[in-house]
Amino acid sequence: SIAANHTDHSMVFADLTALEYLAVRDYMWNQKDLKISRSAIAKPSENFLFLIDLLLPKKQDALFYLDQHGPKPQRKATVVVFFGQSSYLKEYEVGPLDGHLRHRDVTKERYNVENLPFTARTVTIGEYVELFIFLESQVFQKLENELRESFGYIPRKRNLNPFEGMPRGLKAGDRKTWISFFRDESGIYIHPVGFEVLINHESKNSSDWSVLKLLYNGKYFETLESFKKDYERGLVTKIVYKAIPNYASLKPRKKPTGLSPQQSYLQGKRFSVKNNQVIYMDWTFAFGLSSLTGMRVFDVRFRGERIAYEISVQEAMSVYGSNTPGMVLTKFLDSSIGIGRFAHELVRGVDCPHVATYVDVYRYIDTNVTHRFRNAICIFEYDVGRPLRRHFSDFFYNSYGGMPNSALYMRTITAIGNYDYIWDFIFYQSGSVEARVHATGYISSSYKIDGSLRYGHQVAQNVLGNIHTHFVNFKVDLDILGVTNNFLTKDMAFEEVSLPWTAERKVKVPYLVEKQTKTEREAALHHGTKTPRYLHVASNRTNRWGHERSYRLQLTSFAGDHLPESEPEERSMSWARYKVAITKHKDNEPTSSSLYGQNYMWDPVVDFSKYVEDDESIVNQDLVAWVTAGFLHIPHAEDIPNTVTVGNGGGVLLRPHNYFDEDPSIHSPDGVYFEPG
Amino acid sequence: SIAANHTDHSMVFADLTALEYLAVRDYMWNQKDLKISRSAIAKPSENFLFLIDLLLPKKQDALFYLDQHGPKPQRKATVVVFFGQSSYLKEYEVGPLDGHLRHRDVTKERYNVENLPFTARTVTIGEYVELFIFLESQVFQKLENELRESFGYIPRKRNLNPFEGMPRGLKAGDRKTWISFFRDESGIYIHPVGFEVLINHESKNSSDWSVLKLLYNGKYFETLESFKKDYERGLVTKIVYKAIPNYASLKPRKKPTGLSPQQSYLQGKRFSVKNNQVIYMDWTFAFGLSSLTGMRVFDVRFRGERIAYEISVQEAMSVYGSNTPGMVLTKFLDSSIGIGRFAHELVRGVDCPHVATYVDVYRYIDTNVTHRFRNAICIFEYDVGRPLRRHFSDFFYNSYGGMPNSALYMRTITAIGNYDYIWDFIFYQSGSVEARVHATGYISSSYKIDGSLRYGHQVAQNVLGNIHTHFVNFKVDLDILGVTNNFLTKDMAFEEVSLPWTAERKVKVPYLVEKQTKTEREAALHHGTKTPRYLHVASNRTNRWGHERSYRLQLTSFAGDHLPESEPEERSMSWARYKVAITKHKDNEPTSSSLYGQNYMWDPVVDFSKYVEDDESIVNQDLVAWVTAGFLHIPHAEDIPNTVTVGNGGGVLLRPHNYFDEDPSIHSPDGVYFEPG
Ligand SMILES: [Ca+2]
Ligand SMILES: [Ca+2]
Ligand SMILES: [Ca+2]
Ligand SMILES: [Ca+2]
Ligand SMILES: [Cu+2]
Ligand SMILES: [Cu+2]
Repeated sequence: SIAANHTDHSMVFADLTALEYLAVRDYMWNQKDLKISRSAIAKPSENFLFLIDLLLPKKQDALFYLDQHGPKPQRKATVVVFFGQSSYLKEYEVGPLDGHLRHRDVTKERYNVENLPFTARTVTIGEYVELFIFLESQVFQKLENELRESFGYIPRKRNLNPFEGMPRGLKAGDRKTWISFFRDESGIYIHPVGFEVLINHESKNSSDWSVLKLLYNGKYFETLESFKKDYERGLVTKIVYKAIPNYASLKPRKKPTGLSPQQSYLQGKRFSVKNNQVIYMDWTFAFGLSSLTGMRVFDVRFRGERIAYEISVQEAMSVYGSNTPGMVLTKFLDSSIGIGRFAHELVRGVDCPHVATYVDVYRYIDTNVTHRFRNAICIFEYDVGRPLRRHFSDFFYNSYGGMPNSALYMRTITAIGNYDYIWDFIFYQSGSVEARVHATGYISSSYKIDGSLRYGHQVAQNVLGNIHTHFVNFKVDLDILGVTNNFLTKDMAFEEVSLPWTAERKVKVPYLVEKQTKTEREAALHHGTKTPRYLHVASNRTNRWGHERSYRLQLTSFAGDHLPESEPEERSMSWARYKVAITKHKDNEPTSSSLYGQNYMWDPVVDFSKYVEDDESIVNQDLVAWVTAGFLHIPHAEDIPNTVTVGNGGGVLLRPHNYFDEDPSIHSPDGVYFEPG
Repeated sequence: SIAANHTDHSMVFADLTALEYLAVRDYMWNQKDLKISRSAIAKPSENFLFLIDLLLPKKQDALFYLDQHGPKPQRKATVVVFFGQSSYLKEYEVGPLDGHLRHRDVTKERYNVENLPFTARTVTIGEYVELFIFLESQVFQKLENELRESFGYIPRKRNLNPFEGMPRGLKAGDRKTWISFFRDESGIYIHPVGFEVLINHESKNSSDWSVLKLLYNGKYFETLESFKKDYERGLVTKIVYKAIPNYASLKPRKKPTGLSPQQSYLQGKRFSVKNNQVIYMDWTFAFGLSSLTGMRVFDVRFRGERIAYEISVQEAMSVYGSNTPGMVLTKFLDSSIGIGRFAHELVRGVDCPHVATYVDVYRYIDTNVTHRFRNAICIFEYDVGRPLRRHFSDFFYNSYGGMPNSALYMRTITAIGNYDYIWDFIFYQSGSVEARVHATGYISSSYKIDGSLRYGHQVAQNVLGNIHTHFVNFKVDLDILGVTNNFLTKDMAFEEVSLPWTAERKVKVPYLVEKQTKTEREAALHHGTKTPRYLHVASNRTNRWGHERSYRLQLTSFAGDHLPESEPEERSMSWARYKVAITKHKDNEPTSSSLYGQNYMWDPVVDFSKYVEDDESIVNQDLVAWVTAGFLHIPHAEDIPNTVTVGNGGGVLLRPHNYFDEDPSIHSPDGVYFEPG
């Protein structure tokens, strides 16, 4: 059975176990000098162990272990501590997990600063608790009458839900958040009430926090008092509360009738999952789920040959347009709150097929205990419903040969607030791997005011669906026959040629244009520029026919315009400048974004463009492709209640191109062939 | 049951029945003055009834019938006769099919010429018979020794298979075809032997035909005699025949083990097919299969409202690069041989799911009897394996709502010589329709000679996979709330704005850019130019939120460069200049290409660019969108034996955009919802 072929090699990429998280937590708690709070909702002024996650082994060490019987790399954790007492953040390496734990401050070696700025931190549940208390006492209680009349506010019932604009200000150090309020119904994100407040919560002591501004029905107020006064005097256009049916409800309007088609394994599963290792037909790989960046696979092999060392989700970003204050600044960087963090249980028969294999995930982020997320990853084989290949011959050699396209899917779905991203890695029998994302869930919306329609379409009563972009970034560390690779491009052009057999005419003929791109800057392919159609990571070694063995990156993207580079916030999302950027692999350039991108956009600790800026040689190097896909989203009525996945996705297909000597699927047991007679 | 809701309205779009073809044939045969041969393989010098196909009703008549209880349009056939005796071609209208047949010469009214040029005709089986005889007597017999030594030729065994380059010459009137020869093994298309001949078959009398040139191993010869002489004298580099295993075979190399996943209807089919009408959930449509252009649907309605009058395949085109004579000119225009003509039986479990509904098709093209093609269309419901929509809420209102993405597929596969195109129309429960094509089958190849690698990659021993483009064209006649529509575009741009609550900074914000495009030229969107990201066919009527109800066209394409317009052959494929072109609907502009495009490329009877050139107003008009998708194909070793579908496709998604007031899938019985407790 295929299970027999499993190894424990994949364990070097395995996420921490429930017990490992606790061991690291306890170890850190026990470091008296760090004075870490044991509360799950530590206040900003306390020291808080925000994150424990797997520290990936150095690539060289992992390869030495995987390929040359070297020692198994020590298993370690990476730890993030928010030091409220000292007002800075630090990162630690803690390990070995299978030995005597030690910790080491790695802030300097990772970011070249002693400490990370305090306002760069994610807003924790502890801080949200304080924020809710602040809103209750400093806003809701003080505006009880106005909020009741306008929005049906009921004291102490928490029936105005907050949604934050980001970034939290205009410059480094700011922590001033516009909070918009939404009706307390399912799908709150499309129930804006037309009331927003700007809260300054820079101080670690919530007693110093303040309301800086208010927006009511499109009108700004400097203080609660000035709003109250104008409201009383009838100087504002009042919004009058009216209960309406909840158009955001996902409750089916019809009863189920019959059952939609179901896919099943009539003769059993053809793949095997053991620990974090998957074996499927010619494929093997290891998988994991970073709390910050999300789903990832390592050591992806086809017929035993490594194709990719790592394929991983890096970041999901959106930039919004609006004339309301929360949304006008909004640029979401999801890995700063955690993408993998929101990989929740998958629903059988909807999120993944009934017959999928579901895998539990354990995480430690913004908590004080290990959390188990049941069935947060699914793995399944699926027939995509269109032949992988086929040919029917009626002219010569009447015959038929074909093969269904049955592929292995690995999926997580991360529901970060309003949006749900469906992440797929797909392994085809023809040797291709695809990384795909589709968006669904609720759009972000704002209360419609004068001038709103410049920034989107009305999608419900008084609701504007705001125009926005979606950009996602994947790290694709292909290793084609080892790490020494080149970046080649291929395309066509027309040339005029004379016909050797006649002088009657010259004709224009397509020919193959091949190039090697030699440095990082040249290999950083900007959106909106004409770039070669075929992009290849290639080995110097050739296939049977003398061509460099390569994998081609084929991007599917409907991306909008990237934020102009002149905006200071752009630096924290500079990966999105490029459809594809090829860099030289470095262990200290592990991700294109960081936990600190969202709240310190203006001076980010990771600015991807710096990976490119030094313009290193990419000739015969270990190359990493950073791929950005996305789509422009102009919300429309059909985004209510939820955006559908159809047409709302993007990704990258990694396909063999002269890597093999022929299509490997010809060796699949799924091939079908007939001849007459 | 849903079957009860069928109507016979779809019959106005129904292809001819077996008996109708015969009635038209007999009627035409009986017109003594037309002197039509009754042979299936009439010689070019005879009069031949090449094609009988449905004549589509005029749109106005069909709409009057469908929408206003008008009379049922008379059912008619369109007929193409190749008049070998008079050396011209004519088209006729024959009808009414349900009454007393009459015929009418419509050549002038369709093409503004009395007769179509004789060399514009498709090469018939009758002409191929003559060509094979010619090759046998004038080439094979005369070069028996050379061909035996070089290619293992065995007299009278027909073991050198011909493959024609197209177009057949360099200017209007030419019918001079380069024929390349291929080994007689399955998958001949990737077995070139390195021998090509240029045959002049312009004359309708094959006794006048001649061999104009020869190519042997990259060297040209003016005559057979000069080749024989040089060959004897050792002045040519000989190719020496060697039998090799057939790498083109599609026979599986492994025995089946287990069964790939299968999709099934556990509680029965949820769609109904009656005659040429399909009912599925909220969808109804009529379908047909033109022998020339292929699959098409008409009167596509969602919840009873017509979305599209017609969605149809129009043309498939490829332009090749090479330094060998057959391929250097090659520009295939498939509808000139017939796309629908090659829609053959679909294989259950590979081409379509086992549980699909299979429909037989009857055709009359290049024949003298009606041909039945069993199971040439399949219709099935399929769960695409990714939710149509879903949202999990953990912050507020802990709940889950979602829905699997189960859609209706209609499919044909047309295997035109080497290539197989898989055509799909997909109907989603969210109100979207998608037209998709994927390519598979064998690549075209040439024998590798000096300099070949400029035009592709070597993919097998002595075999070059030639670089080429694929372009396909769809006709998309959306009718959004009637025929009076506009073409709107939407996109984003950034603008700098002052923040109303602070003077601290100005920020750049995305906003919505909406435009109406008012004339055909402006609405002809060239490949490679920046065009607005959202393209809409819209009604003046608005949805509940005040926005023009529209469908958006979302194109997926990886097209290469289109042939430069300076090439005279370009005029017959001028539709491929544009990603999307919007024209005013005209009954006399029914197709973007024609039967005569391939063999009369230089002065085509249909030049699509003329539809655009008169630059008519498209304001409040019946609009047709002509959509071109494609991909650049640089063949690689993995194209052997067959190109895989993964990554090799394109198409257009038609999605509602403010057409509804909310996503219609919320009313599907497939919705799923949970709340805790
Ligand atoms: Ca660098
Ligand atoms: Ca690499
Ligand atoms: Ca026109
Ligand atoms: Ca129309
Ligand atoms: Cu969106
Ligand atoms: Cu191709």
